[in-house]
Amino acid sequence: MELKQLGEFGLISHLAKDVQIYHQETLKGIGDDAAVIDKGDGNVTLISKDMLLEGIHFDLHYTPLKHLGYKAIAVNVSDIAAMFGTAKQVLVGLAVSNVFSVENVESLYAGIRSACEDFQVDLIGGDTTSSKVGLVISVTVIGTAKKEEVVYRTGSKANDIICVTGDLGGAYAGLQIMEREKQVFLSNPEMQPELDEYEYIVERLLKPNAKSDIVHELKEMGIRPTSMIDISDGLASELFHLCKASNLGCAVFEDKIPVDSRTEQALFELKLDPTTAALNGGEDYELLFTIQQSDFEKIKNHPEISTIGYMTEPGNGKKLMTRNEHVVDLKAQGWVHM
Amino acid sequence: MELKQLGEFGLISHLAKDVQIYHQETLKGIGDDAAVIDKGDGNVTLISKDMLLEGIHFDLHYTPLKHLGYKAIAVNVSDIAAMFGTAKQVLVGLAVSNVFSVENVESLYAGIRSACEDFQVDLIGGDTTSSKVGLVISVTVIGTAKKEEVVYRTGSKANDIICVTGDLGGAYAGLQIMEREKQVFLSNPEMQPELDEYEYIVERLLKPNAKSDIVHELKEMGIRPTSMIDISDGLASELFHLCKASNLGCAVFEDKIPVDSRTEQALFELKLDPTTAALNGGEDYELLFTIQQSDFEKIKNHPEISTIGYMTEPGNGKKLMTRNEHVVDLKAQGWVHM
Repeated sequence: MELKQLGEFGLISHLAKDVQIYHQETLKGIGDDAAVIDKGDGNVTLISKDMLLEGIHFDLHYTPLKHLGYKAIAVNVSDIAAMFGTAKQVLVGLAVSNVFSVENVESLYAGIRSACEDFQVDLIGGDTTSSKVGLVISVTVIGTAKKEEVVYRTGSKANDIICVTGDLGGAYAGLQIMEREKQVFLSNPEMQPELDEYEYIVERLLKPNAKSDIVHELKEMGIRPTSMIDISDGLASELFHLCKASNLGCAVFEDKIPVDSRTEQALFELKLDPTTAALNGGEDYELLFTIQQSDFEKIKNHPEISTIGYMTEPGNGKKLMTRNEHVVDLKAQGWVHM
Repeated sequence: MELKQLGEFGLISHLAKDVQIYHQETLKGIGDDAAVIDKGDGNVTLISKDMLLEGIHFDLHYTPLKHLGYKAIAVNVSDIAAMFGTAKQVLVGLAVSNVFSVENVESLYAGIRSACEDFQVDLIGGDTTSSKVGLVISVTVIGTAKKEEVVYRTGSKANDIICVTGDLGGAYAGLQIMEREKQVFLSNPEMQPELDEYEYIVERLLKPNAKSDIVHELKEMGIRPTSMIDISDGLASELFHLCKASNLGCAVFEDKIPVDSRTEQALFELKLDPTTAALNGGEDYELLFTIQQSDFEKIKNHPEISTIGYMTEPGNGKKLMTRNEHVVDLKAQGWVHM
């Protein structure tokens, strides 16, 4: 059978079903943003890994190595934030081809160190090897949380409010702009890309932030989300994960999905739909979470949190209420990298 | 500057020197077989990662996927053993090209699960992505140890006895045989490889063991090594690491270096020197460690441990006493993969 037929998530479930757990301190294995290991003192260790491959996850034509190093750390820290935890350490594995110079690796590490400082994580190890096939960056992140504080993908109830941080679709818009400029450059290397007006979306693509701050703020506000996930593959795909994990449906309002005006402007120029970009674009690394209705008052004025809908009974399906007041089925593309 | 000029270990030291540690629970970062994180209750978390790339670390012409899955876990568990700890969990990142079928990935996972069972580790997560450039397997292993039990590369004193587990050079001999058979096959695909007589060395290459058992046995014997490392790049390179970490020299006796007779037979056929294979061959995944002289009686009859020399004052250098009773300088090749 071809891998495409199963898809990424199908493959993961397929492989996960035969997995045996031998240690009782392993509280959560495959199936969330991070694995959870009991420390035995009321705290847990959170651990996750993400691999970035040249030609799949990034294109060195327009990705500065320093940004790439930063992003490799940020996307991993984001997985710990999505468990409502605090990232503490990272390990970085690097496979580099011979065309790389020491200065190239230094640039990459400058970005890694910069992210380590921003997110206050210790770089504690990894491995370095050569590659015949382009750059591969494999990061493992370790975090901590109080055991009862951890937020899983499961745990949501019908009528819980669906929230997202920041704004969506920006990284996708940035990617489209960079791909356009790359084609211009390839057909005429004399042309310099004009990116000034796209600064915001290009940064969304090349230097994403991890929303660790929001996790701390929610804790300070006394809010513990009922479920949470980070948005790496697009809002729709992540909504599907939350619905599946909690066996629920959802209703999302198109006009509540946060899209920045600079993202809209670029997408308009590219003749692309902002809602599609937000739902299926991916790489925004914002947090998607659900809260009890009783917590709504605490967050309704938070400038970085949008409430976009609510969870429903599973029989209701996963619905989008359009701007024109139509009800349509949400579709998740998933596995954009496969 | 070209990467080759610095070498793997030069590059790692170069990059490590600017690394900032923000958390006091990070007891050991870059520079040992695994990083060490304080759990605060007298125990530590050990964590290490290793990436295997097609074309660099393995050749799918002669590496069965099941064996490869097994090996990816074993070499990581070996890093935890080398800290005198117990491996508990692994995460597996996989990048596969489109030519891979679901059945291929299943074979790989069958090997991963088999190793997880043999070493009693829980597979708790990872990521799966596509690759345009061949197979990449990135494994992270998590282990535990009592804080005061952890054995580092540092800690050895002059006159400590140098020990190795098992036997060396076998994986290198296996690699040479497989490369020979591959050439035969490529020039005449009708030819079937004849590997029956090479079973031992081929298994040493394709399905290495991690010496977790020896760690438990040493603990039961009341022995705590003064320093330890696993032998992934060849005995000489690892001796250099131990000497550097403890600021010592060493004296090793050629006739004490354990080489299995089946390895010797194959190397003889290939016109290769067994001592060179043991010193520089790599991939044996045995343990190299030092003990106090007072512990010698406890291990001298252990069938799987050889005492091969002793640590010396740094001024004495790193020496090999040959079978002909000559004293020669040990040379470490290092970075065989770069």
